[in-house]
This record gives sequence, C-alpha cells and structure tokens, in this order.
Amino acid sequence: MDFVQTICDDLNAIREKRPLVHSITNFVVMNETANATLCIGALPIMSHAVEEVEEMVGIASALVLNIGTLTPKWIDAMELAGKRANELNIPIILDPVGAGATRLRTDSSKRLLENVKISIVRGNAAEVATLAGIAAEVRGVESIGASQSPEQIAKHFASTYGCTVAITGAVDVVSDGNQIARISNGHLMLSKVVGTGCMSNVIVAAFAAVDSDPFTAAVGGLTTCGIAGEMAAAISGDKPGTFHMEFYNALYAVNNQSIRAGAKVEVTEA
Amino acid sequence: MDFVQTICDDLNAIREKRPLVHSITNFVVMNETANATLCIGALPIMSHAVEEVEEMVGIASALVLNIGTLTPKWIDAMELAGKRANELNIPIILDPVGAGATRLRTDSSKRLLENVKISIVRGNAAEVATLAGIAAEVRGVESIGASQSPEQIAKHFASTYGCTVAITGAVDVVSDGNQIARISNGHLMLSKVVGTGCMSNVIVAAFAAVDSDPFTAAVGGLTTCGIAGEMAAAISGDKPGTFHMEFYNALYAVNNQSIRAGAKVEVTEA
Amino acid sequence: MDFVQTICDDLNAIREKRPLVHSITNFVVMNETANATLCIGALPIMSHAVEEVEEMVGIASALVLNIGTLTPKWIDAMELAGKRANELNIPIILDPVGAGATRLRTDSSKRLLENVKISIVRGNAAEVATLAGIAAEVRGVESIGASQSPEQIAKHFASTYGCTVAITGAVDVVSDGNQIARISNGHLMLSKVVGTGCMSNVIVAAFAAVDSDPFTAAVGGLTTCGIAGEMAAAISGDKPGTFHMEFYNALYAVNNQSIRAGAKVEVTEA
Repeated sequence: MDFVQTICDDLNAIREKRPLVHSITNFVVMNETANATLCIGALPIMSHAVEEVEEMVGIASALVLNIGTLTPKWIDAMELAGKRANELNIPIILDPVGAGATRLRTDSSKRLLENVKISIVRGNAAEVATLAGIAAEVRGVESIGASQSPEQIAKHFASTYGCTVAITGAVDVVSDGNQIARISNGHLMLSKVVGTGCMSNVIVAAFAAVDSDPFTAAVGGLTTCGIAGEMAAAISGDKPGTFHMEFYNALYAVNNQSIRAGAKVEVTEA
Repeated sequence: MDFVQTICDDLNAIREKRPLVHSITNFVVMNETANATLCIGALPIMSHAVEEVEEMVGIASALVLNIGTLTPKWIDAMELAGKRANELNIPIILDPVGAGATRLRTDSSKRLLENVKISIVRGNAAEVATLAGIAAEVRGVESIGASQSPEQIAKHFASTYGCTVAITGAVDVVSDGNQIARISNGHLMLSKVVGTGCMSNVIVAAFAAVDSDPFTAAVGGLTTCGIAGEMAAAISGDKPGTFHMEFYNALYAVNNQSIRAGAKVEVTEA
Repeated sequence: MDFVQTICDDLNAIREKRPLVHSITNFVVMNETANATLCIGALPIMSHAVEEVEEMVGIASALVLNIGTLTPKWIDAMELAGKRANELNIPIILDPVGAGATRLRTDSSKRLLENVKISIVRGNAAEVATLAGIAAEVRGVESIGASQSPEQIAKHFASTYGCTVAITGAVDVVSDGNQIARISNGHLMLSKVVGTGCMSNVIVAAFAAVDSDPFTAAVGGLTTCGIAGEMAAAISGDKPGTFHMEFYNALYAVNNQSIRAGAKVEVTEA
C-alpha cells in the first residue's frame, strides 16, 4: 500500500467534500482547533449542549471528543454524542487530555472508551500508557516519561481497546494492533505552542471523515500536521508566536507536492 | 443621506466615547471578538452569569447575544440581559449561530426574538431564512443555500420581526423593512478565519452604541469590517494565519480616509 | 538586595524547573495565558471541575484564580483549589477582574480573599481600590480612575489583607506593606490587546513558583512582562495584531541580558 498516495488522495478529498467535523473540546483550544479544521479544508462545528449534541453529530462526518477542561456534564454530552455517532457509523477521535494526572481524567477517559466505540485515540505517551495500565508520569497535560516505548504502549493499547491509537511525540507512533507506523515528521516548535496536539486531533478527524480506515486516517492526519509544522518552522525559526500564525498558513498551503516531498512514514507489522 | 459621512462620524464617535460593549457569546470566539471590540475603539466586557448580567448590561452601551455554543442556561442569561437592556434602551445585536442546524438553535433564536426586542439580527442567509420560515440549507454554522435571494430573505425577516437584519455573504444585505443596503466590501479571506462573522457583530454593536438608527449602525459596522478585510488581505494574500493577525491591525487602522476611499454601499427602498 | 539579579535568577529557575502553573481563569484568555505560561518556560494546566481541582493543584507549583467570566460554581472551584493550595503551601495569585463593576465580582473577590490565603493580588487601580474600600470608577473591566494614588491604594490593600498586591498601569506598583516597588517598564500597546493583564498573572505565578517571597515574585513577573512588551512594540509599532504575536515571541526570548539592560524598578520602604 502506498501510504503517501493515500495521504494525498485523502487530503484532496477533504478539500473537495468539506466534511463537517463536530468537536466537543476544551475551552483552551476551541478557536485554534476550529481554525485548524478550516485551514485543512473541512468545516468546524463546536457544540456541547446535551440538548443538541445528538442532533448535531447527525449532520457531521466525524466527531472529536477532547477532555482537556472536562466536567462530568461535558462527559455526559460526549457520551451522548458518541453513542449517536456509533449508530450512524461516524468515526470518533478521542483525546484523553491529562489522563493519569487526576482520577476524573483517567476515569472519564475509560468511561468513554467503555461506553462508546472510539475509532482513534490520540494522546501523548503518558496518557495512553496510563489508560493501557502501563506505568507513566504525567505533569499536568505533559508526558514526562513512561516505562515502555511508544511502540509497546501503542501495541498494548490497540489490543486492549480494539481501536487505533496514535501517540504523538518526537516520533509519532500509530497502531491498529496489526500494523505500526512511525512518523518522523514534525518540529520541536510544535511543543512551544499550546494546543498543537489538539489541532492534530481535528486534522486526523478530517482524514477519518473521508477515509474509512482509522489507521490510514491517523497516519495521514499526523503526517500532514508534521509536515505543516516543518513548513511553519522554516519561516518562524524559534519564535513561538510567529510559528503559531505560520502553522495555520502551512495547514492551508500543504498539498500533494509538499506531502510527496516531505513525508517520513515507516509502516511495519505490529 | 450621505451614508459614507455617517459611517465616518460614527467611527469617530466610537473612538472618542469608547462605549462598553457587553457580549454574551460563544467560547470559540470570545478572545477574538473582545480584541475586535478593542481594535475598533470600544471596550469589551464578557459576562454570562445570571447573577450579574442585568447589572453588567446596565453599565454597557450595547449588548451582543451570540448563541454559537449555547446551553439553555446561557439562553436564560441572554434573555435576562436582553430584557434589562430593553428597559434601559440599550441596543441589542443577536447572532443566531446555526439556526436551522438543530432544534435547540432554532428554538432559542426564536425565544430571544419573541421575548426580547432585538435591534439588529446579524447572520448568514440560511440562518436568517430559517428564522423567517424560508427554506434553506445550513451545514453546521455555514450557509449552503436558501430558496430565496438575500434581499428577499432580509425584507421578509425585517417585516416579520420588526427589526433590522443584516445578512452577510459575498455581498452583505441590510434591511429595516423600509430601506435595503447592499455592501460589496469584504474579501474571500474573511471566510478562511473562524469568527469573522462574530467579530462583525461586535463592530456593528459598537456602531449601534453611538448611532440610534439600527439600519445605519448595521451598514456602518459591516462596511467598516469589509474594508478592514480588504486592507488585511492586501497584506496577507491567501495566508489565513497572517490574514487573521492583519485583520486586527486593519480594524485598528481603518479611518475616515480608508472608508471614503473604499466604501461600496448602495441604499435603495426596500 | 539586587532586584535585577533576583529577577534573572528566578527567570533562569523557571526555565530549568518548568513549574506547573494551574489556572482557573476566564474563557476569554485561556489560550492566551496558557501560551504565555509556556513561552516564559513554565507548564500550563487549566482545570476547573470541583471534582478534580484539589487533586490537580496538588501537582502544581502555583495557582492562578481569575474571575473574569465567573459564575458561582467556578468560584466554588476556586475556593476548593485555593484551600488545598494553602494546605500544600502553594502560592496563589488572584486577579479580581471587574471588582467594582458588579456585586457578584466584588463579593466573589472578597469571598476568596477571606476564605483563602492569597499570596499576590494583581489588578488594575480601580479593582484593587474597590476591594480596599477606596472610591474608584471601573467601566467593565477597565479602570477609569480612583480617588487615591496607586501607591496609597497598594499600601492600604496590603495592610488590610496582609498579602502582596500588584497594581498594573502606566507604572506598575507592588507592595507587601513593608516595601513598595514602582516598575516603569511596559508599553501602551499592552493596553491594545485583550488579556495582557491576565497574561501577567501567569508570569507572576511562574515567578512565585520558584521564589518564596511574593513581593520579589510579583516585581520579577511584572518587570519581565513589561520588558517583553517593550521588545514586542519595538517590532510591531502600533499594530495590535502584530504586537499580540510578537509579545509571545518576546516572552520566549526575554533573558538575563534583556532584563539587565531594560529593568526600570525602584524599591523603597512603604
């Protein structure tokens, strides 16, 4: 399978079909992820009221659940939307922000994983390790370390929960239990701006909206984000404010040519 | 009536009087609309607690109600603030974000229109058409199409609800039932950044704070926004991140000279 | 005491230790203050659920309470987190946004000051004056004027509440009741972007996380912010959008050399 060709095809499909991506996400990144959704070519909608999330997700092509500033009521809304998305076969991306940092975050992530069929979990190594029962250290929402490699964590998580998992870091690791991808795109500057992980969720969601295979969607979304990060950093240097602005420009400008020239993806059996 | 002169006078009045604009708005655009308020020369305040909205609106010169991330509790706060604004003769701008997309959004918009005297409704064609009982298609918060022209929708809405309505799109259309304005300012890049419509609400509100005629306030606010969009795009080209930043610069820099040189407003009888 | 040396040492300590700063803050500035936290070298976490704030603050090194878009439930969370922070000897920075504008804001600020031991209150002259029982005029969240000088207000507030107070304005004034500092750094452009005061809170919190003296932490944080503002304005000129972006760049770039070259701090007995 030519992954780079698939990524290009999916990106073109996003820009042609303009899928609606419904996010129930945290307050810190709502604007940033909505703009990232728009820049990649999809349409964002943010809606969290229990009175409307089921109706709203019904017109969407992908659903993002992000627990970054959770309360129990928001988790209720996420579960309602998720169950309706499952009925309609709409793919769901879950970001278990800060799982491992507090019981509420760990328990809420597990509750969603148990009650909703998630297509792709996207998190850092410590968050994913925690949910897979592997020892890890998280400081707030930042991964400090884990007792196993990202590859091991990803394989274990995918087999435990039966879904695709994407662990982002210096090298992004994606697995569906059968295959494992290592994506070496990206740039250190992505860690100097708040919410770039959250932005990668919506990009992955846009890919999942046009690609029924969660593994290729996750690989496509993260590769595209990583390349856009490299494009932005090439202009900004080590200025995080400038990088933030240029990252939107890059998400809007990234195309088949930049993906063909830049993609650094290795796929092997898990 | 010389509309361009009125727009210039109103803009000067905003910068001299610095009116306080109270917004009860969605989480996605709070920072962006607060900055837009400040850039045009007014002062922003965001406050949504039912315990304080009546007191807060009492010191404001205009009120913006935007249902973009609504819950019933937030609509309660909007209604409370709106009723108090009505008692104090403070103009209210309503943005029925996503009316037509879900029942909650359609019903909440109607509830506010029925229980509060709104000065200006600002939305896209599909949202306004839905509320006027005209067939339209909305995808999330984006207007896909409507069965009548913006001019017809605006006239029908204004006569149904007895308020000024502003439909933004490639050409903005404003009507109070007696007059109709077509504003050809603006730029495609305004659709590449989330919340530029929401930003136009607060600019219109700032104009309404210094101009007792809702029709001229809406025309002035949208013309000013459109010209600022053109100024920003002239610098950014097709880079949405850069455009976003330059739009604030332009809202701060736009002045009588740019309005005189750039305004493209046609006013006729409705 | 060489204040400039202390500021440099504290800034270096922030970048070495990367303290976690827990903010319970307003919706308008969450992204902006999280990015400011990251730019100065600390780690941000935003969390407001009553179910987790005590656990979350337990892993943090400083707590910021900002009432900018308060509801009673959020004040409950702030009080819970504050009491736990007190038990753990974690410094707390309170921003009483809009105290004086509504009863809810004034009462909530007083409730927090009475029930939680605050290390540093950071506000504008009118907000701080209101809480100290001194006549002042506030318009929304902007200070219009006060009946006493910032120095008098600061001294009175510090002696009334037994904590350090930082009043920001054209000249920032900090007092712990014994000493008083006047910081002449900063730039008018800081008042053209929403949330720069809120950003200064998290910078002060990062300093408080590594410096056990609230007075020197407040002076260090505000001096650093002021110098970063000057650096940003030197590039942006009077363009608020550009200034906003450059302010992040400057917070990331500011270092011992820029502090030594630029600090304008006077400390006297109160």
